Amino acid sequence: MTLDEPTLTENGADLPKLMSELRKRNLHNVQIGLENLRALPEVLRAGSWQATVTVVEIDGQQRIVSIEPGHVKAPLLGLAIDIGTTTVVVNLVNIETGEIIDSQGSYNKQARYGDDVITRIVHATDEEKGLADLQQAVLNTINELVDKLLTANNLEVDQLKAAVVAGNTTMTQLFLGINPKYIRLEPYIPTVAQVPIIKASELGLRLNSEAIIYNFPAVASYVGGDIVSGVLATNMAKEDAVVLFIDIGTNGEMVLGNQDWLVTCACSAGPAFEGGGITFGTRAMTGAIERVIIEPNSFEVELKTIGNGKPMGICGSGLIDGLSKLRNAGLIDRSGKFNQNIDSNRLRRTDEDWEFVLAWADDTELGKDIVLTESDIKNIIRAKGAIYSGIRTMLKMMELDGYAIEKIIIAGGFGNFLNISDAIQIGLLPDLPLDKYLFLGNSSVKGAKIALLSKEALLEAEEVGRKMTYLELSVGNAFMDEFVSALFLPHTDLSQFPSVKQ
Amino acid sequence: MTLDEPTLTENGADLPKLMSELRKRNLHNVQIGLENLRALPEVLRAGSWQATVTVVEIDGQQRIVSIEPGHVKAPLLGLAIDIGTTTVVVNLVNIETGEIIDSQGSYNKQARYGDDVITRIVHATDEEKGLADLQQAVLNTINELVDKLLTANNLEVDQLKAAVVAGNTTMTQLFLGINPKYIRLEPYIPTVAQVPIIKASELGLRLNSEAIIYNFPAVASYVGGDIVSGVLATNMAKEDAVVLFIDIGTNGEMVLGNQDWLVTCACSAGPAFEGGGITFGTRAMTGAIERVIIEPNSFEVELKTIGNGKPMGICGSGLIDGLSKLRNAGLIDRSGKFNQNIDSNRLRRTDEDWEFVLAWADDTELGKDIVLTESDIKNIIRAKGAIYSGIRTMLKMMELDGYAIEKIIIAGGFGNFLNISDAIQIGLLPDLPLDKYLFLGNSSVKGAKIALLSKEALLEAEEVGRKMTYLELSVGNAFMDEFVSALFLPHTDLSQFPSVKQ
Repeated sequence: MTLDEPTLTENGADLPKLMSELRKRNLHNVQIGLENLRALPEVLRAGSWQATVTVVEIDGQQRIVSIEPGHVKAPLLGLAIDIGTTTVVVNLVNIETGEIIDSQGSYNKQARYGDDVITRIVHATDEEKGLADLQQAVLNTINELVDKLLTANNLEVDQLKAAVVAGNTTMTQLFLGINPKYIRLEPYIPTVAQVPIIKASELGLRLNSEAIIYNFPAVASYVGGDIVSGVLATNMAKEDAVVLFIDIGTNGEMVLGNQDWLVTCACSAGPAFEGGGITFGTRAMTGAIERVIIEPNSFEVELKTIGNGKPMGICGSGLIDGLSKLRNAGLIDRSGKFNQNIDSNRLRRTDEDWEFVLAWADDTELGKDIVLTESDIKNIIRAKGAIYSGIRTMLKMMELDGYAIEKIIIAGGFGNFLNISDAIQIGLLPDLPLDKYLFLGNSSVKGAKIALLSKEALLEAEEVGRKMTYLELSVGNAFMDEFVSALFLPHTDLSQFPSVKQ
Repeated sequence: MTLDEPTLTENGADLPKLMSELRKRNLHNVQIGLENLRALPEVLRAGSWQATVTVVEIDGQQRIVSIEPGHVKAPLLGLAIDIGTTTVVVNLVNIETGEIIDSQGSYNKQARYGDDVITRIVHATDEEKGLADLQQAVLNTINELVDKLLTANNLEVDQLKAAVVAGNTTMTQLFLGINPKYIRLEPYIPTVAQVPIIKASELGLRLNSEAIIYNFPAVASYVGGDIVSGVLATNMAKEDAVVLFIDIGTNGEMVLGNQDWLVTCACSAGPAFEGGGITFGTRAMTGAIERVIIEPNSFEVELKTIGNGKPMGICGSGLIDGLSKLRNAGLIDRSGKFNQNIDSNRLRRTDEDWEFVLAWADDTELGKDIVLTESDIKNIIRAKGAIYSGIRTMLKMMELDGYAIEKIIIAGGFGNFLNISDAIQIGLLPDLPLDKYLFLGNSSVKGAKIALLSKEALLEAEEVGRKMTYLELSVGNAFMDEFVSALFLPHTDLSQFPSVKQ
């Protein structure tokens, strides 16, 4: 914009001049922070009364993020951030075109204080400076990713004008420095649902210090902004059809519904599908076993790893595939116990447990046999049982049967490698035609990007957050009854899995 | 307020619970900062879901300042602050009753960087860290006064929930850390008129860190928030009658008008009336000469000092009185030159100048003669001429004569000691009946207190700021012509001073 140069005879000041120009652009109630105000006189004069002003409008508030001299032609940039319990992903986005310019991800540095949200909450609550440790860890994680993006793309930190952040409720509260203590205590009430708009400088985030940080609202202590973001990414809140959205991470969160209603729940699936609690479990990364083929007579094994690297562990999709194949080969029974009568050098007993060798030491990256133990299998069954029971409990609550679901959208770190047939085979997912299934990948960062691009999407996110009815699975017996029945392969009630029964 | 205790079956979080209670109290769009958000869960539980919430509404924004557990019965406290170039005054106010509980004042610590706004602007602009020095100096001044108030009244800093600040434009910009450079450069455009709402913690002010700080808007570089605050204190913007409001400090700022129109100007009167540029000049304080009587035949002198202390200098009212009495006794002529024919040991010539002894060394606190020199008199005449010419220029602009003024309100540090007859005698103030004159004292802090108490007063202040038309005296010849004619005692045109002419 170009401002009139001031004259001796006018009543004026720099700021009202600027505000009056903004009003001409239909921005009537714009706020400015002290930093921009302090820079204002020099910026206006440096650009000979021409300036480029970035205004963010959010929740009806209009705020000046930056004022730069002259006409700035560089694109408007922002960040879409997914704070996962395990992984953090940052997308660098051109806000004008919607293009993802670059992306960076890494482990959440909070991991040193615990693998899951519960151990982190304990650290925040019980350790002196625990909360500060955890907040600083996630800020450092994000800031390092941002620095990589800035360096790789030859950008200045001041060019980053906004960020949209999605995370589960604990991650969001730790990010903001709000103690998550009560998330873990009955009746499991978080501090924030809708999070106030904050500035990057309030947190020490590596963006323009006046950049606006928007956090997705949480629905409950165990259904957070990452799921709201995911729902935005699925578009299910605008569809006629009943959609089931499942995000399988450390917890299994799921949402069922359409444009008229949305119900959501979280089941403590545990970290099995991310490799946690499994002897050779690993995240989906190069060398992780993601496909298992077992020859039914010889019990010989063929593996496929991510990136075709030497096997170094088993990731979620490998575990699901492996379990399905062990069952098909008759190596385990419906309760997950090994058939000890089978004669194969791969099936053996150690001091602690029965185990099946997937890869021999010589063929692995680790130099030792990669096995699945009976207790690993128990953990996987518990995890798959929890997720399936969550789905069933939601359906029951809505008095629907499984066939009412017209589309199933799978998100989560391992989404892209998941074999749906196998997942149905073990009773993790409902027995529906494969063409009803859809993969979304990291739906949380996808939703964050969508909200970064449009005011309307942002309002929709708020609306979605309010609209979702949270189902607390620990209340009543409905979930527990379902869970007990689901601790079999695929399920106690085979009529729910006609394709497996065949 | 009391919140419903959360249960397992509800969808909820602490913050929405609080917001919903606020909505019941007609507070629909309340913002909360990170600090209060971080404290929220513990505060709500510490008070068993009863809490006292302080919300400030300002410019249509509602912000939570504090959340305290239980029902807090202590009064709501705030500060009214006047940042003068020379003196800073802080009133501690009970916002519910309007009572001024206590007040503290001191010199502005910025004085070490220069006596007037111009030297301070030069320091801010030319010295490295000059701006930071000046901002810190005024913050330290205020914080020390606040600490005194807290200690004397046995209060905690968190109990101070809001402050309203009035200062001239340079003082306001320095307070906010905004370089006042362009105030001094043609066309004299300040950075802010209306100042954004800020939090105490943004400046490091000694109040509750989330306390809201409101600054009065400035009209122009040389008519600041202190004058807008003063107009609020005079109530002139709501009156039918035409009122002249004069604030005589380092500058002479004045406002003429009524409910329909307001015009304002500032004349560089110089610091004479605050004792600046006068050999024995001083501020109004104990021992300052405020009354002078000169026996017409013997030229003997009788003095009255503030607090009846031994004379230690001459303050503004003493200078006006002294000038008037010197003229009445025939010791000076209409141009302010001594009558060298008069035979008195009090009238004498030094190497530099002619001077008149007001007090002999033995009678003073200083141990030396207190004198008025011919060049002191010239300075006083220039100062009084500037103020009178400012008044005349405003009247001319509005095509009014002096008699249109129905009330004259005098504010400023020396207001309470000023003898109006003397001021008319020397041509400082218009020759109007004495009963039209009124003293207001420190109108700036008075207006700040009014704005602290009511939302309506605050809106009125904004309205007043917008309504005032600023007259830049350096444009055109109108002021200069008036000024030249006013460099006599009382004036070149005696018809303007009929009572003196008699």
